[in-house]
Parts: sequence; C-alpha cells; structure tokens
Amino acid sequence: MATLKDVAAKSGVTVTTVSRVLNNRGYISEETREKVYKAMKELNYQPNEIARSLSKQKSNILGVIVPHIEHPYFAKLIEYLERAASKQNYRIMLCNSHSEFEKEIDYLEMFQSNRVAGIMLCSSNVDIGKFISLNIPVVSYERNVDVGTTSIECDNFQGGVLAATHLIECGCKNLLHFSGIENEKMPADERCNGFIHVCQKEGVRHQEIQCLEDDYYKMDYRNFIEKVLKEKPEVDGIFASSDVIAAQVIQVAKRVGKSIPDDIKLVGFDDVNVATLTSPTITTIHQPVKEMAYEAIGSLIKSAENAIVPSKIMLPVSLIKRESTSLE
Amino acid sequence: MATLKDVAAKSGVTVTTVSRVLNNRGYISEETREKVYKAMKELNYQPNEIARSLSKQKSNILGVIVPHIEHPYFAKLIEYLERAASKQNYRIMLCNSHSEFEKEIDYLEMFQSNRVAGIMLCSSNVDIGKFISLNIPVVSYERNVDVGTTSIECDNFQGGVLAATHLIECGCKNLLHFSGIENEKMPADERCNGFIHVCQKEGVRHQEIQCLEDDYYKMDYRNFIEKVLKEKPEVDGIFASSDVIAAQVIQVAKRVGKSIPDDIKLVGFDDVNVATLTSPTITTIHQPVKEMAYEAIGSLIKSAENAIVPSKIMLPVSLIKRESTSLE
Repeated sequence: MATLKDVAAKSGVTVTTVSRVLNNRGYISEETREKVYKAMKELNYQPNEIARSLSKQKSNILGVIVPHIEHPYFAKLIEYLERAASKQNYRIMLCNSHSEFEKEIDYLEMFQSNRVAGIMLCSSNVDIGKFISLNIPVVSYERNVDVGTTSIECDNFQGGVLAATHLIECGCKNLLHFSGIENEKMPADERCNGFIHVCQKEGVRHQEIQCLEDDYYKMDYRNFIEKVLKEKPEVDGIFASSDVIAAQVIQVAKRVGKSIPDDIKLVGFDDVNVATLTSPTITTIHQPVKEMAYEAIGSLIKSAENAIVPSKIMLPVSLIKRESTSLE
Repeated sequence: MATLKDVAAKSGVTVTTVSRVLNNRGYISEETREKVYKAMKELNYQPNEIARSLSKQKSNILGVIVPHIEHPYFAKLIEYLERAASKQNYRIMLCNSHSEFEKEIDYLEMFQSNRVAGIMLCSSNVDIGKFISLNIPVVSYERNVDVGTTSIECDNFQGGVLAATHLIECGCKNLLHFSGIENEKMPADERCNGFIHVCQKEGVRHQEIQCLEDDYYKMDYRNFIEKVLKEKPEVDGIFASSDVIAAQVIQVAKRVGKSIPDDIKLVGFDDVNVATLTSPTITTIHQPVKEMAYEAIGSLIKSAENAIVPSKIMLPVSLIKRESTSLE
C-alpha cells in the first residue's frame, strides 16, 4: 500500500507538503496541489483515517445507541441517520443497549476510546451526566434529559390531540388509550396528555392503560390487549401509542369477535411500515423520522465542529388516515 | 485525560511496560501487571483505540453494507450482527448502499482508510474482486459470489420445497410463486427452484412470477399483486418469497374479494416480525437469521485473526405454521 512518503517522492515535494495538501492546511500553490493529487491517484494512495483521527484526536465516526434495532421504529430511524451522516461524510457506529445499564456504560467507554465525534443517545438508562463529562457532543432523541447538547423530539402532545380529535370526529363515544411503558418517563408520555386534554374538553369518556416494558421488548402485547378488550366491551375507539401495538389490537379484536373499523376505530402512532402492511391498514400519527434524523445528525456534526446549536428541537406530527378509521 | 505516561509514572514502571500490559505482549510479572491495572483504575485511564489501531494497522471495527436498513429482514439481521460483534468486543460500522454502485465504492474506500478488521457484504453491485484486493476479510451474506472469505446463506432450495409441500398438503391445486427480483441473481432464486421441483414431482399446476426491483425498495407490491390475482382467479395457494410480499397478498386478496386462508392458502419467507403482526398471521419459512449472523461475525473475526475459516456456510430453514394456511 502506498504511503505518504511514496506520494512525496513521486510528486517531488516533502512529506510535510503532502500532509498539508491532505489536511488543507497552510499555503499550497495550485501547481503543487495538483502534482500531489496526481501522484496520489497514480499510486492509488488511501489516506489513513486512523492516523488522521489520531492527529485530530477525533474521528469521523458518530456513535449511536438505540434500545432495539429490530423494532420498526428504530429500523426506520437508523435508515435515515445513516443517510444523513453519510451525506456529510460521517459514519455510524451502531450500538444496541436493550436499555441495559451495563451495556450503555461499556459503549460509553468504547466511544471514548474510539474518539467518536459525537454521540446520539436514543436509550437512556445511564445518567446522562456520564455522557456529558466526556466532552463529546451528545444529542438525545425522544428522551427526557435536561443536559446534553441538543434534544430532539416530535410534538407528542399534538399527536395525542390529533388522535383523540379524529376518533371523536369518527363518532366514537368510549375512548381507550394504550400508552407508553410504565415506570419510564419519556417525551412520548405527552401523547397521553394530549389525548386526555381533548377528551376532557369534549366531554368524551376515556381510559388510559399503560403497557409493560417486557411486552415492548418482545413486541408482544396480545394477552394484555385481550384482557383489556374483554373487560371493556363498551370501547369503540382506540388510540395506541405505537403502530406495533395497533397491529396487535387488530389481531385481538378479530379474536374477540370485533371488527375494525366497524365496531372499533383505531389510531396508531409512528407511521412505520407495519401500519401499511396490516389488514386493515392503520390510521396513524406520522412522526417525521426522516427530518428528525437529519436535524439530529446536523446538530451533532455542527456541535462537533464547535458551532452553537439549539438545545431543543421539536418537529410537528400529522394525522395519516387509513382503513382502521375509515367510515365506508 | 490520563496518558500512558501518567500511568507509567504512577505505577513506577516504564511506558513500554504499561504498553506491554495493555497489549498483553511479552513477559510481565503478575505483580507489575497488578500495579499497572491499579494505576489505570485510579487515574481513570482510557486506552486510545485509535492509537492502538494505528499500531496494529487494524481497528476493532467491522464494516457492514446492507441494501436497505429499514426492511424488516435487514433490521433483524443488523440486530443480531450487532449482538454477535459486541460479544466479541467488535463494533459495527453500518452502511446503506441502496444497491448503488457509487455508494458501495465510496464505502469500500472508507473502510480501507478506517482500517476495518473485516467487511460484511449484504449487497452486491460492486465487483467483489474490488473487495478482495483490499486484503481485508470479506463475508458475503445471501449473495452469489465465488471469491471472498466466507459466504453465508440459508438453505433456500429447501425453503421452496417446504413451502410447496405444505401448500399441497393443505389441498391446493393451483400454486403461484412470487419470486425474487428480476435481473438480479441471488441465492434466494433457489427458493423458486425448490418450489418448482416439488410441484413437478407431485404433478401440481404452478406458475412463477418475478417481482420488480423498484417495488422492493418501495416495499410496495400491491398493484403488481392485484394485477396477477385478477388475471389468475384459479390460484388457491401462494408462496411469496418474503413476508413483506405475503402481507400485501393478504391486503390485495381482501380487496379482490378472496379470503385467506379460506380461498387462498399463503406461505411467506423470512419469518420477520411482520409475519406475526398481520391478520391473519403468516405461515412462513423461518430463516435462522440469528445463527446466520453469529456464523458470519464469527468467520469474519476469525479470519481477521488469520485463522482458516469455511468458504461457505449454509444453515437450515424450517416451516412455521400460522393462520394463513390454517385449515380450521
């Protein structure tokens, strides 16, 4: 493999000059620059990112910690994070925490020793203070943290408002909300508050039921949903806090002899591919995951380059009408 | 941040000795080792992976190229690749190619300059020869390549055999197979061959229809499926080459007035979460993605450490019966 020295010899300049060209530092005449580039090309010279990282004490790598890669929401998020990072010549080092404290701490140390340029935290068991003390920019994603560089979230409250309003407009009189995970405070809890706000304002009967964390990791809420639907036969409108939950509401409703949308209208949250793959398809609250990912990566890179960035960015949601609330 | 020098000073040994302890090289007495570890702990010393990588000319990073992160199959695969790598203290650098030649070439150069320890290639537009010339181990995953370190695939032919046999056992007389992408040769094509093999042996009518690449990236085959189902009303058993296609067969069948499983029995492929989230749930061919991921990462790491590894690893598939072929 060709080295800096080979390039220098071939182009007839010093190693220092080649290094300056590579790092775009100091004055270099156009002529010299061209000579060096020509030699690099002819020798098929590949700059060593590791050596460059060492001299900068920073790499072109962004560390990303998510709780559950396979979950359709995180799969979609990672898709766009990678696209956004790649456009700016950064790479994603992907870590799955399964919300385990121990793993998050391990990743933290690993990010530090790999000199990542920034960390994107979509999981939050570790005290965020541990991340801050690293002196590496940290963007938190849909997590309640009051320190860190930037926190990104969608307008969860507005999502709850849109869902409840739509169900009421569809004629529902007895609303039910399957909300986020018990015992974990998250921005997503605001979905429930938005839902309650509208129900109270409109004087519509409503109940909120929290899902269990264990069910979240198994992506299996069926037994739980069946128990609830059997206990509450009066329910005619459901707002599920994810499309994965909503898909299982469809399955269980069928099992207990109820039809969606005829007997029960259903609204999900997220707008992941699952919402379009079920029968009926799921009316849902669209999270602008693409835009959220681009904002997150943008903030992280700007911050790594020492620019001042927003401490909080909230993006709007929207209602996507599909068959699960169709009136036909 | 504490340096090697600080650790050496604190433990009363030379920097060379500290480096030997860190890299587990040469003879070091237990007493010295303990002194050094104690000093590292007290100083909260973090070894600099970048510097270590530079001295080894190799990092603890594995480059992974997939065509479509958000697709449920790749989301599941990435989940397990990360787990397998993490267990052996390696990290995943994730790249999405969208099967674009240009992006794959860019990633290739990037992997080279980041001195990745190995490359896992789940996308294959680039001439694999380009990867081989890097002198970095390359594992190809469900791709037809005849060079490279190891190729991993599931027994696709057997999958086609299991699907056709099950549909025939369910009483189907007119089988249809939605097969892989046109114009791209992949191990998955063997699913079609296994299907045809059984139909011919059993004397059952069968047709094979190839999906379009564009539909794959959009994950939307609905119009295509609708056209086929309308043209072929005699079909009473369908084998879809992915669960995503199968989910859409359920939707379209409903739209054209056919019930699954009453009028048409349906078998998918992959066994991703979508297969359990539809109504009815999807009978499918289970790919052992977890085991395939562990084999792939195991081969890659062993090969990076210069061990001899298998050139091909094939894992068995199995039939998972669910509601889409239920006889009740």
